Amino acid sequence: MNDAGHRPQRIVVEPLVRTALLEDLAHGNDLTTDAIVPADRAARAVLAARAPGIVAGLDAALLAFDLLAPGAVRTTIRVRDGAHVERGATVAELEGPARALLTGERTCLNLLCRLSGIATATRALVDLVAGTRAHVVDTRKTTPGLRALEKYAVRCGGGSNHRFGLDDAVLIKDNHLALAGSIREAVARARAHAGHMVKIEVEVDTLEQLREALNERIDAVLLDNMTPAQLREAVELVNGRVFTEASGGIRPETIRAVAESGVDLISVGYLTHGAPALDLGLDIEL
Amino acid sequence: MNDAGHRPQRIVVEPLVRTALLEDLAHGNDLTTDAIVPADRAARAVLAARAPGIVAGLDAALLAFDLLAPGAVRTTIRVRDGAHVERGATVAELEGPARALLTGERTCLNLLCRLSGIATATRALVDLVAGTRAHVVDTRKTTPGLRALEKYAVRCGGGSNHRFGLDDAVLIKDNHLALAGSIREAVARARAHAGHMVKIEVEVDTLEQLREALNERIDAVLLDNMTPAQLREAVELVNGRVFTEASGGIRPETIRAVAESGVDLISVGYLTHGAPALDLGLDIEL
Amino acid sequence: MNDAGHRPQRIVVEPLVRTALLEDLAHGNDLTTDAIVPADRAARAVLAARAPGIVAGLDAALLAFDLLAPGAVRTTIRVRDGAHVERGATVAELEGPARALLTGERTCLNLLCRLSGIATATRALVDLVAGTRAHVVDTRKTTPGLRALEKYAVRCGGGSNHRFGLDDAVLIKDNHLALAGSIREAVARARAHAGHMVKIEVEVDTLEQLREALNERIDAVLLDNMTPAQLREAVELVNGRVFTEASGGIRPETIRAVAESGVDLISVGYLTHGAPALDLGLDIEL
Amino acid sequence: MNDAGHRPQRIVVEPLVRTALLEDLAHGNDLTTDAIVPADRAARAVLAARAPGIVAGLDAALLAFDLLAPGAVRTTIRVRDGAHVERGATVAELEGPARALLTGERTCLNLLCRLSGIATATRALVDLVAGTRAHVVDTRKTTPGLRALEKYAVRCGGGSNHRFGLDDAVLIKDNHLALAGSIREAVARARAHAGHMVKIEVEVDTLEQLREALNERIDAVLLDNMTPAQLREAVELVNGRVFTEASGGIRPETIRAVAESGVDLISVGYLTHGAPALDLGLDIEL
Amino acid sequence: MNDAGHRPQRIVVEPLVRTALLEDLAHGNDLTTDAIVPADRAARAVLAARAPGIVAGLDAALLAFDLLAPGAVRTTIRVRDGAHVERGATVAELEGPARALLTGERTCLNLLCRLSGIATATRALVDLVAGTRAHVVDTRKTTPGLRALEKYAVRCGGGSNHRFGLDDAVLIKDNHLALAGSIREAVARARAHAGHMVKIEVEVDTLEQLREALNERIDAVLLDNMTPAQLREAVELVNGRVFTEASGGIRPETIRAVAESGVDLISVGYLTHGAPALDLGLDIEL
Amino acid sequence: MNDAGHRPQRIVVEPLVRTALLEDLAHGNDLTTDAIVPADRAARAVLAARAPGIVAGLDAALLAFDLLAPGAVRTTIRVRDGAHVERGATVAELEGPARALLTGERTCLNLLCRLSGIATATRALVDLVAGTRAHVVDTRKTTPGLRALEKYAVRCGGGSNHRFGLDDAVLIKDNHLALAGSIREAVARARAHAGHMVKIEVEVDTLEQLREALNERIDAVLLDNMTPAQLREAVELVNGRVFTEASGGIRPETIRAVAESGVDLISVGYLTHGAPALDLGLDIEL
Repeated sequence: MNDAGHRPQRIVVEPLVRTALLEDLAHGNDLTTDAIVPADRAARAVLAARAPGIVAGLDAALLAFDLLAPGAVRTTIRVRDGAHVERGATVAELEGPARALLTGERTCLNLLCRLSGIATATRALVDLVAGTRAHVVDTRKTTPGLRALEKYAVRCGGGSNHRFGLDDAVLIKDNHLALAGSIREAVARARAHAGHMVKIEVEVDTLEQLREALNERIDAVLLDNMTPAQLREAVELVNGRVFTEASGGIRPETIRAVAESGVDLISVGYLTHGAPALDLGLDIEL
Repeated sequence: MNDAGHRPQRIVVEPLVRTALLEDLAHGNDLTTDAIVPADRAARAVLAARAPGIVAGLDAALLAFDLLAPGAVRTTIRVRDGAHVERGATVAELEGPARALLTGERTCLNLLCRLSGIATATRALVDLVAGTRAHVVDTRKTTPGLRALEKYAVRCGGGSNHRFGLDDAVLIKDNHLALAGSIREAVARARAHAGHMVKIEVEVDTLEQLREALNERIDAVLLDNMTPAQLREAVELVNGRVFTEASGGIRPETIRAVAESGVDLISVGYLTHGAPALDLGLDIEL
Repeated sequence: MNDAGHRPQRIVVEPLVRTALLEDLAHGNDLTTDAIVPADRAARAVLAARAPGIVAGLDAALLAFDLLAPGAVRTTIRVRDGAHVERGATVAELEGPARALLTGERTCLNLLCRLSGIATATRALVDLVAGTRAHVVDTRKTTPGLRALEKYAVRCGGGSNHRFGLDDAVLIKDNHLALAGSIREAVARARAHAGHMVKIEVEVDTLEQLREALNERIDAVLLDNMTPAQLREAVELVNGRVFTEASGGIRPETIRAVAESGVDLISVGYLTHGAPALDLGLDIEL
Repeated sequence: MNDAGHRPQRIVVEPLVRTALLEDLAHGNDLTTDAIVPADRAARAVLAARAPGIVAGLDAALLAFDLLAPGAVRTTIRVRDGAHVERGATVAELEGPARALLTGERTCLNLLCRLSGIATATRALVDLVAGTRAHVVDTRKTTPGLRALEKYAVRCGGGSNHRFGLDDAVLIKDNHLALAGSIREAVARARAHAGHMVKIEVEVDTLEQLREALNERIDAVLLDNMTPAQLREAVELVNGRVFTEASGGIRPETIRAVAESGVDLISVGYLTHGAPALDLGLDIEL
Repeated sequence: MNDAGHRPQRIVVEPLVRTALLEDLAHGNDLTTDAIVPADRAARAVLAARAPGIVAGLDAALLAFDLLAPGAVRTTIRVRDGAHVERGATVAELEGPARALLTGERTCLNLLCRLSGIATATRALVDLVAGTRAHVVDTRKTTPGLRALEKYAVRCGGGSNHRFGLDDAVLIKDNHLALAGSIREAVARARAHAGHMVKIEVEVDTLEQLREALNERIDAVLLDNMTPAQLREAVELVNGRVFTEASGGIRPETIRAVAESGVDLISVGYLTHGAPALDLGLDIEL
Repeated sequence: MNDAGHRPQRIVVEPLVRTALLEDLAHGNDLTTDAIVPADRAARAVLAARAPGIVAGLDAALLAFDLLAPGAVRTTIRVRDGAHVERGATVAELEGPARALLTGERTCLNLLCRLSGIATATRALVDLVAGTRAHVVDTRKTTPGLRALEKYAVRCGGGSNHRFGLDDAVLIKDNHLALAGSIREAVARARAHAGHMVKIEVEVDTLEQLREALNERIDAVLLDNMTPAQLREAVELVNGRVFTEASGGIRPETIRAVAESGVDLISVGYLTHGAPALDLGLDIEL
């Protein structure tokens, strides 16, 4: 995906941006800016990349200025979400009250750098598996409060989304299996309760468990912590009947071998809990 | 600091934990757990480290279970915030409704792993500067919504906190200087508006600017992007009159040389925007 | 389903119950009760059915008392969610401060009567299609703010849930088809963006459209406003490859004929926008 | 009332509409629309009645689009709240981003259909008592979260409002009487605490109780579950000194006889807990 | 009133107390207390009057401690809301975590001192009119966010409440009359829209206006800015048909003369916008 | 300060104004205005001073109209925050829907009168200490929910702000000292935990304590309840090394003598808990 079209709805994102601003302004004022910069001073600012990467989250990040000074900051977007930027490239230009630009800068950057970092890390993995059938997908290992945005950042980087929460799909994991007693019983219970629009995936650790799972009516299997060799065998066993997802500590160094096993999906928690922020900055121009 | 005593107030943290749980449960149910695990099933679980590091954020993380099942999950904490854990060590034991344990697991871990990652990264830097006078401090480059917790995690790792927001201290940065025209003018305006309990720090890029700043009544100087040699010269110039803070892209590889310049503080944005999560897991025991 | 085990999480339901109480108490007091009933007066109350039906929503309804007087009202549930009650049967017994019982009564009943009405209407339809393969499912035509609870009430009545929102499954409707140009194009776009845990259903009005849809990789078809004869033909055409859902103005009078067409699912908006409340009452016992 | 002038304030209604939208969009996206419809696609839509009735709640319903796409959807209202529409009539025309129209459609309709259903049911009863002195009034048996809007819908249908909550008027019911010991004592306590702007009504089941109540300084009596003959006798007894309100299971079939007893008011819980939604739809026009 | 029985519901008050605590703790910590006082240190504290007056708002004020440390602070109330305290008297004793006592102290006192100040000022006026028929009533000139509590404080001081908002009674003021054209027209419009549980009061400036108002079906008249002599004449004119309320800049010095005019009610904005706080303090005992 | 430039951010103030409006409109309507004033009626209104004083809080107060009728009320500000107004002077002119003007009037005035009262009281004290080195500062004895605005009002009156909360500076008070055992120990603990941007002040009751405090590295001393003679001695003892703050029951009658002792700061709780509201009014012009 290389446009901002599938960004999360503003009504979902706005409370987070508001919370972020209030972390900086709880007592009411930006002590530095309000003292130094006159209220009627206008300014221009440039949002620029200080390292190469993929941009993600511009709308959410720029919302900071709109919440501080509704309608007063004009923005011109030069690089859209999902696009690659070179170091030094201008991402957006802003024009409006100098105070709002200075006061909102950190909130804007904290969002944008984090989300762009995720998109950049995703793109790197997507590139590493190019030519295989594997899609890079995220997990629920997201930052509290940022899930919708972080999953969007993964899409901006060319990845796909796994389920969004515990409420939109069934994923039967080892702990569930332990409590249910068997894959058969666990799937039966899930099947009995899940509506027809809900998919069911089962996590398996061994090929034996995989065979057991394939006897049930499921949509996908999560192949947990398997070696590329085991994955290859699993893929053969599945033979296209359900989606195959490789998971478990996969990193840039290992992802190619995993992808070449023929799995459909590779889920990588690192995208959202380990990717470093992309360096971007905001410079006021006088 | 090696105890949980200075953790942020529950009334500050609870909204974030609630938000995180609702990201998983917006439509009301954990489809998998509710189908497979009986409502009256009890279970025990162990929260364990899967990598060595410093624990931080246990109270906030365990709050997830209390919000799901008020008063029903008993926890025994084995390792307190700020302590080091070895790989495999038990951090806490939990006992309560199996459903609450499974449904709250991810929210608990997403908080705990992130905060512990920050504490771990902080401790590493603190150890690297041991024997110098330098304190490792954080920045405002925190995750939106998590500032109070992330700054607490820095304290758990042995670091100190820079200001918490734009509202509790004055930091005059390059953009402010540009708009004010001179350091003298900027400090004068800040001084005229700041109450007597507000400290004032000025960011300088050069020794010339530093000399200019030292003519004003300020509390600290931020020495931006200086080499260790420049920092040493700056420290001599300041001669103990104000706090000296080194800042700008400092990483584990470079921090020792910075510290040996004699600065009082080294601020590191990487602590909160680049530290990878610490790997911890929750295992249900039957 | 005949137990309360799959009820929506309290953290999802509590804001609604709080809002409902505040509709009665915005200015702070129950003018009648506070004037007439001493603060230390205790009372017992019986929650009883005044008409036969299926109970649903007891936990949410009783939460009203807990929010007014935390921990002070003891309840004994005699009939669980999903069970049938006869007229006059005791559903629950309550004991606690008389004021809380009187002040919370209406909020409790407004929730319980509405949800039980939905469960009762669902059960009636489920009984009407007994012996066929058809499941009765709900729609998104729910009361604003009550979706999770109303979908739970449908489950209590023996029905199944369709998707919970626009965010957990794809349903391509006539308006989407009109904007995409063709079923092929619409499904292709949806397929390209949907993750592997997302199901795709397509609404069709004619058998011709149905044939077109069956050429695509989809999970279900919604057969809109078809006669039982058309439905039967559609079911044959589909031949078990995807779920078949009949929809469009189906009522108690017509549902049996629809079910006998062999469809898998019958969705009925009436369950949540037309079912009358079940009559229940709360009687204080001196 | 036949105009939208007395609609509840937007600041009261907006949180409900926002909640309703978030029920559909909690995870951030309309999966179907965002995949199929380009972000820059504009469209026109017609909001039309699919059954005859009284319209109510247009402003609240259309607010859904404004919250999704602030300022971007232009609406032309053809039929105002309180007016009768024939089947097929256009109620409003909308023009704006196709995505917002599709994504907001269900929230808009869920509100509008429910409120119009209440207005339609109210109007039917108002017509049935035409020529008598009786006013049709609502009760507190409203949908949790929708009270202000549902009471507005009753006004749109030509009905009047009973009290809005427990906090704006005193209504002494059987449970209060039981706890106070006597009507005299209950009224005395209420009178002692109620300010001069608060009205007091007493519920009575028998003519004997009515005589007792008329000895006190009250503003209205609620005649509970009386036959038309009893009501007539009660009205004579009251002789215009206070308002007389008939209540208790009154339905379209029985309301005329009740009204002819001469009571001032007939309160009908069915208006808000039993009236079916009015069928309206939104059609995208290409 | 001399007991705490009619205090506003906790669900109404709690958000305000939470907001007040967050004004002190937005960034998460009480820097002083958390550094100096160990987390496990217990303490006792005494809440004492430092000036004589009437206590009001104890429950709301003590809620501060319960929100900081749920269930951990035990309180023994020595003087109930509505009672007189002498300077030095103990109002309540507290025992619990020293940190919670210190951190919550200011929020507790800010609420209690303000509300007790209102109750004290009310009692003084009530005493001044003793022996006349006049009741002292409040206005809507309350502190934003504190209306329910401030009106409760007035009751604690022996006063009565005027309407609580714009939504529970009709008060036709000069601006409304100007826009309606005449008292007759204004009352007619109000009467046509107000339900039977809504009282109507009209503000008049002259005896001529009063005569005009008495021709309409109203419940009370507000006699604005009249001298005692004019008030006496007005009371005669009204002759008990409706409530008479004197209003307009009434202060302790003038209230007795106003009361002796025979009016039923004297409304005093000063109670809530001018009464100084009562001095109370919290002392930690070692 | 004599301009509105340093007013608290709108995102901080808006929730309070919204809460205030909802206190008046919880049930949805202004019963009087909605009945009497047509929805399309426009009006002009003048906000005028009815007593001389200093204006503060105009933006917050006028926000009431913007929240009721977004973008529909045009305001012309004639007197800016911080300026003196004579009795009768026009502060602002408003033009817009008559309903919004009438419905928002009380919320607007409740805010503006209270904040202007604080500014007026502050200015009076500031004038009383003119020619001395003393600054008048506020305390944390503010109205729950209004701290940011009340501290702004103090600035409008020419005063300075003490700390904003427990989270932005350290103030070691008698209770802390009692729990720590000594000033030395208390300061040491505070120093060990406070970041470099946090100031530390110590409260002392005697000159002996003051000497003890001056041995530690602190930024200010609060001289509690000292006579002018004691204060003079204290100032000499301090000799400019730290800020000196006089505190404790200081009133207009006593402040000059306190100021002449040479202290840097005089903190006055009365500004926010005892200053009467300034009388302003809103008059509709036909």
